[in-house]
Amino acid sequence: MSRLLVIGGSDAGVTAALRAREVDPSLEVTMILADQYPNFSICGLPFFLSGEVDDWHDLAHRKADEIAAQGIQLLPGRASTGIDMRAHTVTARDESGVDAALRYDALVVATGARASRSGIEGTDLAGVHTLHTIDDGLSVRKRLNAGSVEHAVVIGSGYIGVEMADALARRRIPVLLLGRSPTVLPTVDPSLGALIQEELERNGIEVRSGTTVRAIAAAGARLEVVGDNGFSRRTDLVIVAGGVEPNSSLAADAGLATGLRKALVVDRQMRTNVPGVFAAGDCVETWHRLLQRPTYLPLGTTAHKQGRVAGEAAAGGDRAFQGSLGTQVVKVFDLAVARTGLRDDEATAAGFTPFTVETASWHHKAYYPGAQRLRTRVTADLRTGRLLGAQMVGHWQAEVAKRIDVFATGLFHAMTVDALNDLDLSYTPPMGAPWDAVQEAAQTWLAAVRSRRN
Amino acid sequence: MSRLLVIGGSDAGVTAALRAREVDPSLEVTMILADQYPNFSICGLPFFLSGEVDDWHDLAHRKADEIAAQGIQLLPGRASTGIDMRAHTVTARDESGVDAALRYDALVVATGARASRSGIEGTDLAGVHTLHTIDDGLSVRKRLNAGSVEHAVVIGSGYIGVEMADALARRRIPVLLLGRSPTVLPTVDPSLGALIQEELERNGIEVRSGTTVRAIAAAGARLEVVGDNGFSRRTDLVIVAGGVEPNSSLAADAGLATGLRKALVVDRQMRTNVPGVFAAGDCVETWHRLLQRPTYLPLGTTAHKQGRVAGEAAAGGDRAFQGSLGTQVVKVFDLAVARTGLRDDEATAAGFTPFTVETASWHHKAYYPGAQRLRTRVTADLRTGRLLGAQMVGHWQAEVAKRIDVFATGLFHAMTVDALNDLDLSYTPPMGAPWDAVQEAAQTWLAAVRSRRN
Repeated sequence: MSRLLVIGGSDAGVTAALRAREVDPSLEVTMILADQYPNFSICGLPFFLSGEVDDWHDLAHRKADEIAAQGIQLLPGRASTGIDMRAHTVTARDESGVDAALRYDALVVATGARASRSGIEGTDLAGVHTLHTIDDGLSVRKRLNAGSVEHAVVIGSGYIGVEMADALARRRIPVLLLGRSPTVLPTVDPSLGALIQEELERNGIEVRSGTTVRAIAAAGARLEVVGDNGFSRRTDLVIVAGGVEPNSSLAADAGLATGLRKALVVDRQMRTNVPGVFAAGDCVETWHRLLQRPTYLPLGTTAHKQGRVAGEAAAGGDRAFQGSLGTQVVKVFDLAVARTGLRDDEATAAGFTPFTVETASWHHKAYYPGAQRLRTRVTADLRTGRLLGAQMVGHWQAEVAKRIDVFATGLFHAMTVDALNDLDLSYTPPMGAPWDAVQEAAQTWLAAVRSRRN
Repeated sequence: MSRLLVIGGSDAGVTAALRAREVDPSLEVTMILADQYPNFSICGLPFFLSGEVDDWHDLAHRKADEIAAQGIQLLPGRASTGIDMRAHTVTARDESGVDAALRYDALVVATGARASRSGIEGTDLAGVHTLHTIDDGLSVRKRLNAGSVEHAVVIGSGYIGVEMADALARRRIPVLLLGRSPTVLPTVDPSLGALIQEELERNGIEVRSGTTVRAIAAAGARLEVVGDNGFSRRTDLVIVAGGVEPNSSLAADAGLATGLRKALVVDRQMRTNVPGVFAAGDCVETWHRLLQRPTYLPLGTTAHKQGRVAGEAAAGGDRAFQGSLGTQVVKVFDLAVARTGLRDDEATAAGFTPFTVETASWHHKAYYPGAQRLRTRVTADLRTGRLLGAQMVGHWQAEVAKRIDVFATGLFHAMTVDALNDLDLSYTPPMGAPWDAVQEAAQTWLAAVRSRRN
């Protein structure tokens, strides 16, 4: 019987294990977990910390016994300390320090990522937290529940940063949100970032963009956050939300090739440079469907897809990862902001001739009560008319996320902006318009190109 | 200067006129309207009658002056009484009975549809209404506002029928909804129709399916609705919601070819059999993208798309209508029900080997408050794995409509069910899951096929 070993029990690892068993039910699958939390929804931590989710156990995508019921052996609480590519073994150390060598025929490396400290000094001080593991979440919750937090600083105004600002505000803790870039949420264009900043401020968040933090220091029982241009602020709790770095050193030390930001190099079947060894998720480079080259784009959705491909490949299949479009959405108080594909600047850097047009529209017919404003930015190539990307902001119940998904599905198929008008999309006055907001944005882009040419 | 004449001022006519002017701003465009209501949202009438929309003027997609501002001459209140294909003229009769012959170089016929009486006797009685024009809506509203309606019968349990049952219930009028088919909303499968029936009944609607109405008779100051198998019921108001028939006789009398249900025959550029004469909207046959043949599928979304193509063709362009998938959505109290593509029985009739699987899922991660149940039915071909259709029911704010649009966009590109898993869709716990409900349904379908083969 052939044995598949999976290092890592989060999205990519679990998906790979499940898919491998599905493709080849005779496969013996063992999964080594560093912690006790297989298949947890790390993306759910801000909602646990806000109090919207009461019990952290609910954050599991699947419980351990559901995974085991699929014929997967779980080895929790084991640190993987070494991989011997010649002997086909992984050394796993249990909590009492005892090593065991586990043999494999095929190996999936799904060691994920770790929170970046963003080069800031003092991040190991008590009261300074990153937010990437269930243990991180439990530490912050414990601190919040102790009741001594009268002010918090969130460093980083990306997805996790704005979610954490929202979460802390829901707990009535005054928050300063610090971002390095000129606007919050730099993954969308400044005009949409400005709408998010307004929403944050409307909800009492103090936002300070364009600020680089250098150090955090103890200041009596409190903390002092120090940055460029004389910035400093005292606070009780600091969340460092500065993105993640691939957790690739175990695999790299064993001989797997690394690329961008030291992420593992994989091909479209998630094969590494060593035969029989696959890798997926936040520890690997991700193929970008539009750029047609690898990027580092760690996302839960991508980890699931790559895990599925890796599991299938490890079981002898030949599915290929079809590439990421960088599709993302985040909820910030009452707004949702979503994007897919390339922004104008990204498209220019990639050699396209992009043109971006912003459209204001209603999420359903304005005459039906409750219509919400949408702001949509469409980026497409001037020479070919090909859609390159879309961004949208609107009320979080105004179907922003799934409208971006329509754009994403169009992008997947390399549609032109004009062809979006050919899509047969659904319509009823309480839920849309005969030309959906997606198509309205397409038509505005086309009209802007026409008037630009005249 | 070349002159384009458009007969009809609803969705297809107005879109054709606007698009023609966009493509060729030198074109002189004149539009003949039978009534005074250009570009009104007929789909909005149920919401006007429910009281959700207070002023019927708000139902206009565009006001007359907005259309005129695009350089389109409007001739309202003119009955088009004849087309002379040799002389290139249309005879328009004004409200005082005076005829005028209007010359054209190109003609777009967009005469729409009229409400079907479903072969029922007595539909011309006072208190019996169809619902297809603004005047129809105003008549019903007047009757409702008079306050004498203590009970209503809605004949027909399709889209308009269920919307009207909802609308009347919101006005606290007891309603009997009669349908000929065994379940309500026969455009979706019975298991989903049953959920809609439950929702109707939960909101106090009396539903009686499998009942064919034959006649309506005066019964004193009331009406009596009589059907098969001894059915009869007294009521104050009857809405006949039995679908529509193409309004094609003017054009047919002038020599345009007709096909299915006497709808006008057009090619993919919306050209009729007479050179220079185009037709679009509810009066024409509609090319079905999956069936690859014409159907009769009168929908506002389709009328807009066909109008755009006809306008472009009339202005010398060569855009082709890319076909309908029959994508539809309707809101029934708190539920939305949507479909795109073919149902199992329709796919079988079209020569496919369909297999349909129903999936229950949450509209976003269950741990985040407010998760709603979705029921999704995926139909795909067993031999090729190609997606053929999808149906979904869920809370109307659970992004049902736009999820069906993701399926519709996949169908447009002839995707397999398996390939839906490759789509890079957006995710955040309050708005979805790492595998969106669309992909969860795809995976359930694939698993069902696997277990069927084992």
